[in-house]
Order: sequence, then C-alpha cells, then structure tokens
Amino acid sequence: MKKLINRPEDVVKEELEGIALAFPDMVKVHFDPNFIYRADAPVRGKVAVISGGGSGHEPMHGGFVGVGMLDAACPGQVFTSPTPDQMLEAAKMVDGGAGVLYIVKNYTGDVMNFEMAADMARAEGLRVLNILIDDDVAVKDSLYTAGRRGVGTTVLAEKICGAAAERGYDLRRVADLCRRVNINGRSMGMALTPCTVPMAGKPTFELAEDEMEVGIGIHGEPGRERMKLKTADEITEMLAISIIEDPEYRRTVREFDEEKGEWVDVELVDPPFRRGDRVLAFVNSMGGTPDIELPIIYRKLHEICEKKGLIIVRRLIGRYITSLEMQGCSITLLRMDDEMIDLWDAPVKTPGLRWGI
Amino acid sequence: MKKLINRPEDVVKEELEGIALAFPDMVKVHFDPNFIYRADAPVRGKVAVISGGGSGHEPMHGGFVGVGMLDAACPGQVFTSPTPDQMLEAAKMVDGGAGVLYIVKNYTGDVMNFEMAADMARAEGLRVLNILIDDDVAVKDSLYTAGRRGVGTTVLAEKICGAAAERGYDLRRVADLCRRVNINGRSMGMALTPCTVPMAGKPTFELAEDEMEVGIGIHGEPGRERMKLKTADEITEMLAISIIEDPEYRRTVREFDEEKGEWVDVELVDPPFRRGDRVLAFVNSMGGTPDIELPIIYRKLHEICEKKGLIIVRRLIGRYITSLEMQGCSITLLRMDDEMIDLWDAPVKTPGLRWGI
Repeated sequence: MKKLINRPEDVVKEELEGIALAFPDMVKVHFDPNFIYRADAPVRGKVAVISGGGSGHEPMHGGFVGVGMLDAACPGQVFTSPTPDQMLEAAKMVDGGAGVLYIVKNYTGDVMNFEMAADMARAEGLRVLNILIDDDVAVKDSLYTAGRRGVGTTVLAEKICGAAAERGYDLRRVADLCRRVNINGRSMGMALTPCTVPMAGKPTFELAEDEMEVGIGIHGEPGRERMKLKTADEITEMLAISIIEDPEYRRTVREFDEEKGEWVDVELVDPPFRRGDRVLAFVNSMGGTPDIELPIIYRKLHEICEKKGLIIVRRLIGRYITSLEMQGCSITLLRMDDEMIDLWDAPVKTPGLRWGI
Repeated sequence: MKKLINRPEDVVKEELEGIALAFPDMVKVHFDPNFIYRADAPVRGKVAVISGGGSGHEPMHGGFVGVGMLDAACPGQVFTSPTPDQMLEAAKMVDGGAGVLYIVKNYTGDVMNFEMAADMARAEGLRVLNILIDDDVAVKDSLYTAGRRGVGTTVLAEKICGAAAERGYDLRRVADLCRRVNINGRSMGMALTPCTVPMAGKPTFELAEDEMEVGIGIHGEPGRERMKLKTADEITEMLAISIIEDPEYRRTVREFDEEKGEWVDVELVDPPFRRGDRVLAFVNSMGGTPDIELPIIYRKLHEICEKKGLIIVRRLIGRYITSLEMQGCSITLLRMDDEMIDLWDAPVKTPGLRWGI
C-alpha cells in the first residue's frame, strides 16, 4: 500500500488536525467526538445544515463546511459511518436556535445513525429534520443500501440548502428544498481502478488491466456490469443515457413528522428528465483520475444533453465526491428551477468549493 | 493503459473542446494554434500575462486563465513544450496595448520557444518580456533543464502577477514582481507512483511496491534519491527541510533588455529562508494522491515551519501542478511581503482557482 500517511489508524485524526491548521478562517475541528464546524458557528437565527459519512470521499463532506454551505460535517473512519454521538454533538455546537437539517446519504449505517442522533437531539430540545439523498440510478438495493445509494446529488444539495439557510429560510423550507433537490438529481459512476482503505491495506476489489466497472458505488460496491474498457465517449454515453432515460422512480423513505412527533413513511417520486429541462451537469472525478480527462467526459456529456434536449444552465467539473485514489468518474444531472439556480450562484466559502467571497 | 480518453492523439484537442464548452463565462479556446484565453480578452490598457507548457499538469496552466490571473495559456501535447506560433498568436489575441509578460517554467524547450515567440512578437510591434521560474531545489540541471526546474512557484507567480496586471501595474512592474516571486519561492516534490503519457501507453518510469522517488520532476524526471517508502511525516520533513535549509542560490538567466534591444544575462540570487520570514505554504498533490492525505502533509509542514521560525500567512492545499495520475506531493514555500499578500488575496475567477468573484 502506497500512501502519504503515518499509521493507518491515525489517518482521519491527522487529517482533521491538518484541516484545523490549514483552514482556520473557515472551520474549526472538534475531537472526540470528531466533527468539523464553521469557524463562526453557531450563527444565531440561521438553520444549521449538517452532513457526514465515512471518510475517503474528500472534499465531501468536511471540505464543504463554511459560509454558504454546511455548518458541520461528521467524518467516520474511512468508508465507515460516523456515530450518533458525533452527529448529536455537532448539532448542539452549531444550532443557532432555528433548527438543524441532517442531509443523509442513503447507506444503512448513515441512515440509522442520523435517525438515532436526531431522536437524541430532539430529546435535548433541538429541532431536527433528516432528508435522505438517494440518487444513484445504477442499482436498486446494493451492498450497504436498501434502495438507491446517495452520491453526487449530495454535493449539490449541500450547496443549495446551505445557501438557502444563509438566506434565512426556515427549517421546514430548507428540508423541503433538500427533498426537491434529491428527487430532481440522478447520478451514475464507473471505475477504472480500485482503491485501498488504509486500515485494510489492500484494494477493495480487483479489476483486470482491460476491465472497468460501470455503475460502481463510492465505496467500490459492485455496479451494474464489469466489462472491457471502453473509450471516454462510450463510457460517457453509458452513464449519461442511464441517467437521462431513467424512468419515474417511486419509493418510500422515512422522515420525521413534527406534528405527529414520530417517524413516518413518505412516498417520493423522481420524475424522469424531459426535453426542455434545465440541468446542472456535474462531472466528478473518483479521485485518482487526472484533471486532463474530465473535460473530455464533459465534452461528450454536453453533446448528449443537447441531443436529448436538456439545457445545461450550470456546471461543476472536478473532484468533489471521491473514493480515495480510485480512477474513474461519475456524472450527475440535476434538474434546476429558478430558485435552485439562484441559490447555486450564491456566495460560498469552504475549503472545497468557493466563489463570491 | 487505463484512461478516460478516446484516441491518445486526440487527448489535448478534446480536452480543449471540453474546456471551451465547460467554462464559456471564463475562457475561450483557439485551435490551430492551440491556446486558451480570457473570454473578455483583450482587456484594453492591461498588461497581458501568458504562460504555457506541456499538458498533463492540469489545472496548470489552462485552468488558471480568467479574471485576476492569466490572459492566455498555451498547452503543448502531454509533457511536450508548446510551439512559438501558439505563444505568438496568444500574445496577439490578448494584448491590450500595455504589453505581454510570458511566465516561463525553466525547461529547455519552453525557454527556447518562449524566447523565439517573444522575438517574433516584438518584430510585429508588441512589447513582450519573459520571466523564468526556476524554483525546484531538488536538482541543479536535470533531464530537460539547465539549472533548476520550474515547478510550484509558477502557480503562485501566475496568481500574484495576474492580480498585479488587473490592478493596472505596467509591464516592467509586473515583470519585476514576477522575478521577485521566483527568487522568493522554493519547491520540492516526490512520487509514490509513476504516470503514463497517453501517446506512450506505458509508465514513464518504474517504482517498486515499497519504493518512492524524492526530488522528482513534474514529468517524472529522476530526483535526488530513490528510497524505501517512508511515513508522511518523514517525507514532509525531507521536502520541507530541503527547502528551508537551501542555501543562497545564484545563477544567470537570460532576460530581454528593452533599452539595449537585446537578450542579456541577468544574475539572480535567491536568498535563503530566515527565522521571522512570512511564507505562503503550498501543499500540492501530484494528481493521483487522494485529498485525505494532503492535510496530513500540511499538519507536519505547519509544525516544521513553526519550529524553524517561519510564519505561515497564507496557504494553498490541493492539486494545482500535477503529473497526470502520479501519486505524490510537492511542497512550495514562498516568502511573502505585504504587496504579495495583498495581490494573493485579490479576487480571481478561473476554472482552477477562484475566490472573491
């Protein structure tokens, strides 16, 4: 295993120590339990937006903490869910009195722990809502998931909801917006190479020199198909068409009903893309893919969107939700309305995403 | 070779096509000869800052074109110098009447071609000055260089000189500032893995599973020493101490003397770092290194700088000058004065570096 690390068991702790030293104007770090939070938290009267998940997907989520995006992020060990005490303590630290939104990627451990944390926080008098992100069209159910996995749309939801909270939206409105982003976003990824979790010391899976995995998850979970390596154009077409032609998607998720005071089942429906939809096109590197390759993917995606009548109104191209050093990419398309576009453009200042400030 | 590309010979062309589609608010792309230039160029009355070099180091240089940084960038094929006609046509496209500064990394081909382009541009009535970046302390002379290689300080010089040009500095003053950034910046890099040039189809060098190369160049040129893999702390210490304890460095470079109307030898002296110096600390990924590892490097660098009495006043952490998918990192320390700090903080809006706009 070749990595720029010291002891594998210290990777996350030392990463957090480095982040605290590197970005003191944007974030602070709390240890035991571990979370990264806005340097100016709590912001009185503002809804606090919190996310979290296993480490190894940097800059997500810790790199998205700062003005205009997340108030806090809870990192687990690499590819391991954070624990409820991290989420609870983060909420208590950043709550500005207007409540807390937990943005939760749909992985069994994350979902369970964020639900538990929300219950604990409510028991301590905080207002907390959880919204799920489940946008990966590649597979229904997978290794760590019931239903679709939460991937690229998470980054976009964190930016848009962070901007909304900054504008003074109340908790219910930020949560409704987050749900709307989720049902309008779809993603799919692929990998050329595996990655190695530091504590494991060996690749999470094997791929032959002429093979790739299409529909892969961000922890290297199996995707739709292992196949012979194809060209960038063919790969982009496979991902983009799977996203654009994905039919209506219906499922039931659990959300907390504040009036009833209990968790309830909510039916969500992702409407399929239609000609004339305005979209944000997000080309994401899995981590190890060099930057020279991403515009080649974008070029073909742009052509396909034009052909399918989708109007690209915003773009994000780079490494934002990664799988350590895995080579590969994912594509996310988010159907945007005027409000989302306006919030996307709002100023943001985080280690991983920054403009306007 | 596993890459997200179509035909190897089309990589740069298709990358440029993708960039043109992806960032139309920031840049335009000219083909045959190839260069990326500011969407609003030429900016009347402003000095134009241009750089360029082989592709494969993205986001450098093309990703640094935009308001507050470069007016144009000339990409060669991967790891291959661009040609004088690219540099000449770029200068003619973006010259706003106040002259052009070519920022040139010290590689034999780049230096020669940028000198030729400057002579050709002058013959066509443009005012052009060339400033060299030669900041890599790892080796004197190397595979493609007489003298030290140009590496990380290039990114910082492009940001600082771009801001100065935006503020209305005249050509002489931007060139003097660029020279000052160069003599105050020092870098060194290392690699855990090689990278593969698309047209070559195989790794540029081999490293055993337990080996690393310290002092490596951004094209995989041999460094100071091939050795057994060490910890992140040990690696950071090797790089940082080599930089901080590098003695005074004297050499002669060629610059164009406008009064004499000819190229002249100029003696440059890099003063060594001293306790109390204010520095920008730049931790750079070679491309394939995951983001989780960079704060671990920064953490140790911060500790070493404190011990050595260097005051870190600004930081840059991420992938900015890369070698395709090579895993590894480089460190750059730039001694800053008030003027450089102020220019560093100025707004910038490019695909690869952005804040304040």
